[in-house]
Order: sequence, then C-alpha cells, then structure tokens
Amino acid sequence: MTTGSSLPTHKDKPLFTPGPLTTSLSVKVAMLHDAGSWHWEFNEKVRAIRERLLALAGVSRAGGFDAILLQGSGTFGVEAVFQSGVSPQGKVAVLSNGAYGERMVLMLQRARIDHVVLRTPEDVPNDPAALDALLARDPAVTHVAAVHCETTTGIVNPIADLGRVVRSHRKTYVVDAMSSFGAYPIDFEACGIDYLVSSANKCIEGVPGFSFVICRRTVLDATAGWARSLSLDLLDQLKGFEKNGQFRYTPPTHSVLAFEQALAELDLEGGIAGRAARYRTNHRVLVEGMRRIGLHGHLPEAVQGYIITSFVYPRHPRFDWPDFYKRVAEKGFILYPGKISQADTFRIGNIGRLFPSDMKAVVNAVAETLAEMGVDTAA
Amino acid sequence: MTTGSSLPTHKDKPLFTPGPLTTSLSVKVAMLHDAGSWHWEFNEKVRAIRERLLALAGVSRAGGFDAILLQGSGTFGVEAVFQSGVSPQGKVAVLSNGAYGERMVLMLQRARIDHVVLRTPEDVPNDPAALDALLARDPAVTHVAAVHCETTTGIVNPIADLGRVVRSHRKTYVVDAMSSFGAYPIDFEACGIDYLVSSANKCIEGVPGFSFVICRRTVLDATAGWARSLSLDLLDQLKGFEKNGQFRYTPPTHSVLAFEQALAELDLEGGIAGRAARYRTNHRVLVEGMRRIGLHGHLPEAVQGYIITSFVYPRHPRFDWPDFYKRVAEKGFILYPGKISQADTFRIGNIGRLFPSDMKAVVNAVAETLAEMGVDTAA
Repeated sequence: MTTGSSLPTHKDKPLFTPGPLTTSLSVKVAMLHDAGSWHWEFNEKVRAIRERLLALAGVSRAGGFDAILLQGSGTFGVEAVFQSGVSPQGKVAVLSNGAYGERMVLMLQRARIDHVVLRTPEDVPNDPAALDALLARDPAVTHVAAVHCETTTGIVNPIADLGRVVRSHRKTYVVDAMSSFGAYPIDFEACGIDYLVSSANKCIEGVPGFSFVICRRTVLDATAGWARSLSLDLLDQLKGFEKNGQFRYTPPTHSVLAFEQALAELDLEGGIAGRAARYRTNHRVLVEGMRRIGLHGHLPEAVQGYIITSFVYPRHPRFDWPDFYKRVAEKGFILYPGKISQADTFRIGNIGRLFPSDMKAVVNAVAETLAEMGVDTAA
Repeated sequence: MTTGSSLPTHKDKPLFTPGPLTTSLSVKVAMLHDAGSWHWEFNEKVRAIRERLLALAGVSRAGGFDAILLQGSGTFGVEAVFQSGVSPQGKVAVLSNGAYGERMVLMLQRARIDHVVLRTPEDVPNDPAALDALLARDPAVTHVAAVHCETTTGIVNPIADLGRVVRSHRKTYVVDAMSSFGAYPIDFEACGIDYLVSSANKCIEGVPGFSFVICRRTVLDATAGWARSLSLDLLDQLKGFEKNGQFRYTPPTHSVLAFEQALAELDLEGGIAGRAARYRTNHRVLVEGMRRIGLHGHLPEAVQGYIITSFVYPRHPRFDWPDFYKRVAEKGFILYPGKISQADTFRIGNIGRLFPSDMKAVVNAVAETLAEMGVDTAA
C-alpha cells in the first residue's frame, strides 16, 4: 500500500483474511468513476445488481423475494434485520458458536429486544435438536438467527437442518451468510430462509461499503411500523428502491460500481460453483501445506469450511503471535489473528483474489518465519 | 460512466450535486489498493485521519475533543449521535427549515426519543430567539440539533448564535455540518458545539462510505449504557479506535484511502480558506450566469450559502423538469432535483472538483437546453 497520489508502484500484500479481501485490479479500476446517486445510469446499475443477487440466491421477485442493499458493513445489515424486522413483542433465539453469534446477542441487548441464546462450543456446530426443544418449550420466540460460516473458527453450521426445525415451528428465520454467500450453494426454499444477510466484500469479491439482505417479501411487509432506527429501516430502504430506484441516503457509489464488476467476474469464474471450486482447492492446498510443516487446524475436518481456517499456535516457547504476524507481513503476507476464546489460534483465509499459488506461497512464508524464530514444530 | 472492466475511456459527466461529488482522479486512484483492516499500515492511516479532522475543526484531544469515523452515509452519523448520545429520559429540540431537519425528526420518531421541533419557513434561517423562548419554557429538553447548511435550499443557519443560546441553557448541542465542514470555517468554542457530524464525500471531496463525528469527550463519555444500537454506538466505536486503532466492524477501506488523499489535496488548496474561496467563486459565477439567462435563485441573497443553490423553475408552459434534466444530462452535466416543499425548484451544487469554467459550462448547457425546449425566460 502506497500513498494514493499516484498509480500503484508495487503489488499490495495479499490479504489472507475474511474481508476486506484482495480484489482484482479490474474491480478496483471500476471505482475510477464518479456516479451521480440520483442519475438514471447509476439507478439502472443498482437495479441490475439487485436482480443479480436474487438470481445468485436462486430466488425471484415473482417467488416472493427481494434484495436490499444497505450502507455500512455487514454488521449493519444483520442489525437492520433485528432493528426493523422484530416486533416490540418479538423474541429472538440466537444460535451461537463464535464471535458473530455473540455479536447478534450484543445487537439484541442494545436494541432491548428479548432474546435467548443456544450456545455450542466453538468447535461444535449449532444443534438442531436443541433448537427444536427450545422452540417447543418457549412459544414466545418469534425469530431464529444463525450464522452460516462462523469465521471465528471457520466452522460451517447446518442451516438447512436448523431451517427445517424453524419452519416446523413457524418462526422467522434469519441467516448471517456474510462469508458464505457466493461461495456456498444455499437453497433458500429447502432452508426456509426469510432473511439472508451478506456483504459486498466477501465471496462476491467486491470492496466494502454496503451489505445486502435477501428477504421474503411477505415477512418484511408485515414489519411496517416496527423499525427502531431510520438508517437501519429495511422496509423503508426497499420502498425507496421501489419508488425511484435510489438508495434513501447517499450510497457508497464507488463500492457499488466495484460490486457490479465483481458480479461480472463471478460469472466469468462459473458462478458459485466455480468460485467454490477455487476456494476449496485453496483450502486443501493450505491445509496440506501447513500439515507438512507441522501446523494443524483447530477444527475437526468434518465441520471445517473452505472459507477460513484457524490454526493452533505451535507449542513452542519461542512462538510469539505479534512477532510472527509482523515477520510474515514483512515477507508480504497479511494473516489474521485468532478469535477463539478457548484456544490460541491464528487464521488464514482462502477467499478473495487468491489462488493455489498464493496458498503455497503463504505456507512457505510461515515455514521460513518459524525457522527464523527457532520454532520447531516437530517438538 | 462506463462499465468498470477497463480504464476509463471517457470523462465522467461532472456532478453539480451536494454529493456524491466529482472527485479528483488522484482521490479515486488512491482506491486502487486493498488494505487489511487489521493491519498496522491501515490503522496508522485511520489514526492520522482522525488527527487531521480534529486539526481542521480547530480543536484537539488535549482540549477535550475526539474524532470518530463511522461506516455508512452521513445520515448514519447523525442518527448515531441520537441513538447513542441521548439518554432514555432525554428530549431533543430540532431546528428545522428543510429536509435534513425533518430527517432528524424522523430519526427521533423511529428511536422513540422525545422531541420538539422549531420550524421556520424553508427560506428563513433558524431563529435563536425562538429557541431561547423554547428552552426557557421546556426544561425537559436536553439536546438541541441544527443543520448548518440546509441543502434543501442552500440556506446557511446561524449556528454560532444558536450555540450561544444552547450554552446559556446548558444543553448539549448537535450540529449537522454535512455539506459545510471543510468549506465553511466553524469555530467550535464560539459555537459551543458538542457533536459535529459530516461526511467523507462532501467538502473534503472524498468518496462516500463513512461519516465522521467530532465530539466533546466529556459529553460522549457520559453516554455509557444509553446506546440503542450496536452499529450506531458512537462511544463503543471510539473505544474501538482507542483499544487497537481499528474500526469495530469492517471499514470501507477504499473510501478511507481516498479520504487520506482528499485531505492532502485540501491542504494543497490552502485548507478551508482556499477551498471556501473556490466554492465562493463557483457560486458567484453560477448565479451571475444564471441571472443573465433569466433564471433566479429561490433564496434571498443574504441567507444563500456557497455550497448549493436552488433555482426557481422558469414560469413557462414548455418547461418540464424531467425533460430539462435529461437534456442537460445528455449535454454532459448532472443537475440535482429540488427538494423544497413550497416552491418548484432545481438545484446546482458548487462543491467537488468543480471550477469556474465548469460553472460557466453548465450555465451554457442550461441556456442551450431552454432554447431547444422553446422556454423563453424573458417571459
């Protein structure tokens, strides 16, 4: 990263993070334009993006769904569902096995929305049977919220099994698919999803600036009058798009232009299937490489997704995370710290404009760094 | 605006709007980088930007102020002040003479925060004497909120006179300086401002993606526990920056890089004074040119600011705004619709990378369009 006043003079360090990601140069070049947020050319792009998101989700407006873009990070999108989608008498059951489940709990606390939390350990997926029992004994629950890929660990939760339980109890189902949408096939109907939230800068490989919510229209329409926030009022935001094609408030125009390009590049890669194949290969190359140098993932393989992987710190007195991070960064690779409460881990993401060669390169940088530090992983 | 997959092949139409604006190419080029939101290089940029904003505001951390960046549009920043800065027993007096004052009222309604509105007509500035009387008779009021430059009309409100009244009643003072900060000198101490809100894509000439709040630290510290939203929790956001230099949630990294460059270019132009001089000239060239072709501003000159100007529709049966807008756009100039409830107007902004030559060019395009349409403004 250089000062911005001239064209890039060197390659940015690739980001092995869960986002913001390394994006293609063509996605960034799409931002070299200033679009008028009121102008028809920009509105047409927004309209086309909303259509494209519905198609990617395998749903349609005729089938009762709609797509809403919302300014801010992904967290803003998830909170908007709660702030505007839950009635004053509503109660949310949150399935949590990591930081993003716990963030939902914080949102509900701030908004003074009644809630209950079903926790599993960070290396254990959400439990549909426990949810079934909870919903049977607590009829006050109106909404169930789950995180598809919990990037705290990289675990993938069983959103279809959970969804069957939610539907059998006739509750509203909210899925945080922040880091999975675009790279994991998600069957809306089979899962019975009412609100799915994701973000521009995850597996679509755009830049940050907005989140998006794909929602069942009848469910959203029933929320009129419930919103506790103007900025986070989802129904109002949708009505704005319907009225004149515009965001209600200033959109991140450049991020929207980048996203348009990112969607085109997702198509070129073969859509969700093509992208999933690359990420899966990235993940395999990474895990095999790390294993060869004596570093192991925190999660059991059966529940480990191909988005991001938590690696256990080497058990060696000379290993020190800040020093390790700094040395790997100086070699040109940006890792990500751990977020697990019960284990010392760091994370390596597989998403963004990363290819198997990048995964091999980061493994080599890790190996070289450990050798420099005198950390023997065979110990 | 072209499809984003290649370098720009033609000049974008200049935007005569209140933002998003036409920005410099160098500001946009700064976005050709992917920054790690956790990485020290990016955190250092965020820290420097916060310092720079305090300096621009003429305040300091030692003097009891701090600067907070918040994801989303400017509206998110204003709402964050209310959502997290007003106690459950608080009451806000809103001074309104346009759409942005009314937007504050909507925010307070959504958040179920008690409030009272002091309205003046859209062409009359906020009235300090009326505020004084209100605060004398309603001791429940805890906060006063005003809009500095109301872009509905382009009117500039007397924030220093209002501030003296607010201070004499010992209330908290919130100023929406969205379209004025960076182009109007604002004396924080003389005005007694506790919270000032502006946005990346206004007079600093960055791109949209975040707002910023410059606030008096003791006032913000007293708000612990009041926030009704997690995403819009200002104190929590500030504590995040203090803890590890990071945004709590994914920042619009590219917008932040663009803003860093925009701040450097503001310096090059001579800071707020230099920018104000250019905008003032832009405004003068525009108004004189429009007058020559028979089009007049809606506001009395004494209250008209140099940010954006509302022009009254020509009184001629052949004038039709959508057709006029389209024809002017086809000539390469993006105007802005009116927002005044009591008069038919359209708006032309003077801010962004616009120079007197652009203002002359837009006047010529307007004249040519009126001639084409057979609209005789001498009538």
